[in-house]
Amino acid sequence: MSKLTGVVPPVCTPLTEAGEVDVASYRRLLDHLIDGGVDGLFVLGSSSEVVYLTNDQRRLVLETAVEHVAARVPILTGVIDTTTPRVLEHVRVADELGVDGIVATAPFYTRTHPVEIDRHFRLIKEASSTPLWAYDIPACVQSKLGRDLVLSLAADGVLAGVKDSSGDDASLRYLVLEARGDGRFDDFSIFTGSELLVDTALWFGVDGVVPGLGNVDPVGYVNLYRAARSGDWETARREQERLIMLFDFVNVGSRSRPMGGNSSAIGAFKAGLALQGVIDNGRTADPQVQLNESELETIGGYLQRAGLAVPVA
Amino acid sequence: MSKLTGVVPPVCTPLTEAGEVDVASYRRLLDHLIDGGVDGLFVLGSSSEVVYLTNDQRRLVLETAVEHVAARVPILTGVIDTTTPRVLEHVRVADELGVDGIVATAPFYTRTHPVEIDRHFRLIKEASSTPLWAYDIPACVQSKLGRDLVLSLAADGVLAGVKDSSGDDASLRYLVLEARGDGRFDDFSIFTGSELLVDTALWFGVDGVVPGLGNVDPVGYVNLYRAARSGDWETARREQERLIMLFDFVNVGSRSRPMGGNSSAIGAFKAGLALQGVIDNGRTADPQVQLNESELETIGGYLQRAGLAVPVA
Amino acid sequence: MSKLTGVVPPVCTPLTEAGEVDVASYRRLLDHLIDGGVDGLFVLGSSSEVVYLTNDQRRLVLETAVEHVAARVPILTGVIDTTTPRVLEHVRVADELGVDGIVATAPFYTRTHPVEIDRHFRLIKEASSTPLWAYDIPACVQSKLGRDLVLSLAADGVLAGVKDSSGDDASLRYLVLEARGDGRFDDFSIFTGSELLVDTALWFGVDGVVPGLGNVDPVGYVNLYRAARSGDWETARREQERLIMLFDFVNVGSRSRPMGGNSSAIGAFKAGLALQGVIDNGRTADPQVQLNESELETIGGYLQRAGLAVPVA
Amino acid sequence: MSKLTGVVPPVCTPLTEAGEVDVASYRRLLDHLIDGGVDGLFVLGSSSEVVYLTNDQRRLVLETAVEHVAARVPILTGVIDTTTPRVLEHVRVADELGVDGIVATAPFYTRTHPVEIDRHFRLIKEASSTPLWAYDIPACVQSKLGRDLVLSLAADGVLAGVKDSSGDDASLRYLVLEARGDGRFDDFSIFTGSELLVDTALWFGVDGVVPGLGNVDPVGYVNLYRAARSGDWETARREQERLIMLFDFVNVGSRSRPMGGNSSAIGAFKAGLALQGVIDNGRTADPQVQLNESELETIGGYLQRAGLAVPVA
Repeated sequence: MSKLTGVVPPVCTPLTEAGEVDVASYRRLLDHLIDGGVDGLFVLGSSSEVVYLTNDQRRLVLETAVEHVAARVPILTGVIDTTTPRVLEHVRVADELGVDGIVATAPFYTRTHPVEIDRHFRLIKEASSTPLWAYDIPACVQSKLGRDLVLSLAADGVLAGVKDSSGDDASLRYLVLEARGDGRFDDFSIFTGSELLVDTALWFGVDGVVPGLGNVDPVGYVNLYRAARSGDWETARREQERLIMLFDFVNVGSRSRPMGGNSSAIGAFKAGLALQGVIDNGRTADPQVQLNESELETIGGYLQRAGLAVPVA
Repeated sequence: MSKLTGVVPPVCTPLTEAGEVDVASYRRLLDHLIDGGVDGLFVLGSSSEVVYLTNDQRRLVLETAVEHVAARVPILTGVIDTTTPRVLEHVRVADELGVDGIVATAPFYTRTHPVEIDRHFRLIKEASSTPLWAYDIPACVQSKLGRDLVLSLAADGVLAGVKDSSGDDASLRYLVLEARGDGRFDDFSIFTGSELLVDTALWFGVDGVVPGLGNVDPVGYVNLYRAARSGDWETARREQERLIMLFDFVNVGSRSRPMGGNSSAIGAFKAGLALQGVIDNGRTADPQVQLNESELETIGGYLQRAGLAVPVA
Repeated sequence: MSKLTGVVPPVCTPLTEAGEVDVASYRRLLDHLIDGGVDGLFVLGSSSEVVYLTNDQRRLVLETAVEHVAARVPILTGVIDTTTPRVLEHVRVADELGVDGIVATAPFYTRTHPVEIDRHFRLIKEASSTPLWAYDIPACVQSKLGRDLVLSLAADGVLAGVKDSSGDDASLRYLVLEARGDGRFDDFSIFTGSELLVDTALWFGVDGVVPGLGNVDPVGYVNLYRAARSGDWETARREQERLIMLFDFVNVGSRSRPMGGNSSAIGAFKAGLALQGVIDNGRTADPQVQLNESELETIGGYLQRAGLAVPVA
Repeated sequence: MSKLTGVVPPVCTPLTEAGEVDVASYRRLLDHLIDGGVDGLFVLGSSSEVVYLTNDQRRLVLETAVEHVAARVPILTGVIDTTTPRVLEHVRVADELGVDGIVATAPFYTRTHPVEIDRHFRLIKEASSTPLWAYDIPACVQSKLGRDLVLSLAADGVLAGVKDSSGDDASLRYLVLEARGDGRFDDFSIFTGSELLVDTALWFGVDGVVPGLGNVDPVGYVNLYRAARSGDWETARREQERLIMLFDFVNVGSRSRPMGGNSSAIGAFKAGLALQGVIDNGRTADPQVQLNESELETIGGYLQRAGLAVPVA
């Protein structure tokens, strides 16, 4: 695979009322994203509720994606688990099914250290020839991947890319600047996980974006990306601002009732997909709180104001 | 099982050089603990490196424990994973193999909320008739279990006990005082996960202790516990102080070189077991840093000063 | 002054309705504490709302204390400010007025480091011959004072004592054990700032306690301390448990309405003093939220259940 | 004063070897900035080491600035202290000396709450007719100012502006978007405190920037700002990237030896000024660590690579 760039949404995982993977809905979601023009798909990322899925469910998700996408776009998959031995189990499944990249975080739950994080990625790389991406998500794993660590792993051929969901764009920008113009990093992909600062991240030099909100509005992010790449920054900004106002729907649940941020945010993404008719229902996995009718109605208002067609019930 | 009390060490998991479970060493460790007089065993807790073990390894550990312990003492097992659906997979294994209690943390990696944590424990309880314990370990899962939450779950029969590894003894003491004298909590076990404040926690009313250091010196904690229970607090304190000075060996690694706190602490526990000849070697799981010869020698000095017999090589 | 031990409450600062220091009430509070049998007084500590007092108000508080106490018990005073130059201004006032000890925290607001904290205490010591105490309060200043740092400063004669409000009793116990039996620390006072774990801290070897709740019930802490010192640990524990149940009144405000923890806790202390007739009113400094009638009534219930006489209005 | 926009550096405070304010150097620094084309000056901000300055030193700094600037550009001044009563003392000095704006943080050291932060700003506003700015700096005060809080205070005429040093540009962008097109916020200034994401923040709509690095290279930030305002974003980005590579010099100290982040960063700013001959020396206030010759040399290299003229010694 040549260097990946562009819009690579972290695909949500539709569930049945019983909490099982809704394969039919999932296939429709994959088509919805590919039809929207995305450049790749990131399955089993945080937005997929990967940490809420059993190993069997993860395999089913990945099998479905590989089969249904049928190489129309590249697939990255999360191999997210607490430490190396558990991650390697997911790597084996990914290698067996065949993907274009695997994406791992630093170890979590345990007290780790940069020297161990470095070793973690190197051990994963030794076990698989699939391109390996680092997923920098300190809000979930409590460790920030330092730019020296990332660049050293990239220079040694361990990492093919990084997805930066740290929210620290100053750090991300240093990474971009240090990689630029250094031949060792020509094939190294730097992606932002931000939904809200995509035009600016593209402006300062990232290669692509992994926007959770891209599930709900893939066309928006694709338009944003293409406008930016063509130098039409005004259009990119206008599209970004529209998406920012939409993104605020992630707070509908948590503003209305006690619930966790994931229930509220992933609940909004899935509600946005269900309200557009892409997936059958917006259920999130246990033990998350389900959005209620009133909250779904509020979310519907956000979709309409963002110009997304919501079929009449 | 009647209400559990006393010393219930979180059993380490010996590994072979290749990183597999060393079953022979594990059996010797189980005997070492039972011979030391412990009142129960907590397998697949944090000190077991549970988050470094694959599901197959977890099953092997639990199978070995159930078979080898053969009901000599009660067995609690961790069912530690990120969220309810994944925890329930471990619960099914525990139920199949037959244990005396299962121990679950709050969800982690994801952004959760007390209402979801409450639901998490209730869903686990619905799925299994094995007594359920809450494991309060905010350093690993980023959520502190509030005492209102714990007591409400206990009053509703969801929880059989709590293991408090929060380090917040003021909060733990409130829990003890609020549970005391209320018939609803007569069978509710309150354990501290501290190694260093056991005499004081027993003094203010906890039912037992889950000391990682108990792997290395089970007799010490048993003596401490029995002295306290018999009202001989001076002996309890003396024993506690000896164990405190020993416990400082958890810092040997991290004081000497860059490594994570888990490498250093679990490395010291396992080194302490290997130096006493209980297990074959002190290897910790990947990607942790292994202690070197010089560090092992320093750890040997700690053992000797604590009066633990170290066989001559 | 010989080594300080015993009960040294952090004295609250009564305010008039206009927010000025209520000197008459303050004198009554000082007498209330001395009559209660305390071994010393800590003025301008966190419980005094020191960070809410202007420099003129701080001086007035200290002047009033020095004059009114008239050497009946030793006086420690906080010299709490962001960095060395600002702390030294408060030290000069303390030296001018004459106190038995000054108490300084690590620098705050700024990004500091152990080597700078070390230098901070050494510079303060160079500027004043008054005994210097370290105030370990990471919840306020974001830095924990390591035991190596504290002991090195004590060994060098920089520190006369430490007040540990870190809530980390495992760390505190290490400090106690390392100082014990080492002649260099014979005159070094180790105090806990806990209200809830005083019997246990005395049990493991601290020299004294600085309990905010001691404002409201000095006799309780004095009884607890004397019982512990005489070896009557059962009485100490019973008294401690009574005080724990009382202490929960610090949550009355924050359970009832949105307000900060300081408003709720210091509001409860002052309400407890006002309801007992020691001070004129329970006003806390701006911009804190004032407790309302209903909350004061709830607090009155706590006082009565704790056996404190509340005069009929 | 009409709405403030543009480049408003937070002015460093040169110190003599003895740690006193170096007035002559300070005047030269003020001229250096004004000659560089800045649109205003922010004195007694975090970069001024305000929390390291005594009240007398703060007054001297502000007097010097007001007198020497002589209304050539507007002056904002920090009134930074722990709580309302102490902040109001600084406000009185600012009002007496006459400035164009005062800048206050949320309360710190104490446990506060949004309702108290709201009241804090309202009480400050009641006490002074000088335009009030909110300083959002959670790294120093541990509270993030929510956008609802900021906009509500702005709508009520309490706040004239905000300086956002939170590093959370997603939140900042929401603030910009919500204020835009709403007449109530026409005069409300939104500034970023970032040094590294200025072109992007201007792109998404902030009114200006308060860059600490602007002390060292005011012309750079002025050029960046003017290019952006004229729509020449390529020039803005090129200038920004040059400044990013320079900014890395803030890590020279802390990469080389144990020291706090403030020592390293403010030390670098002041070294940059001293090496350019603007101020006499780069001393930072106690108890910070002073940079050594080797570190100064490294910093000189950064200046030269950034194209800043460093006079030959």
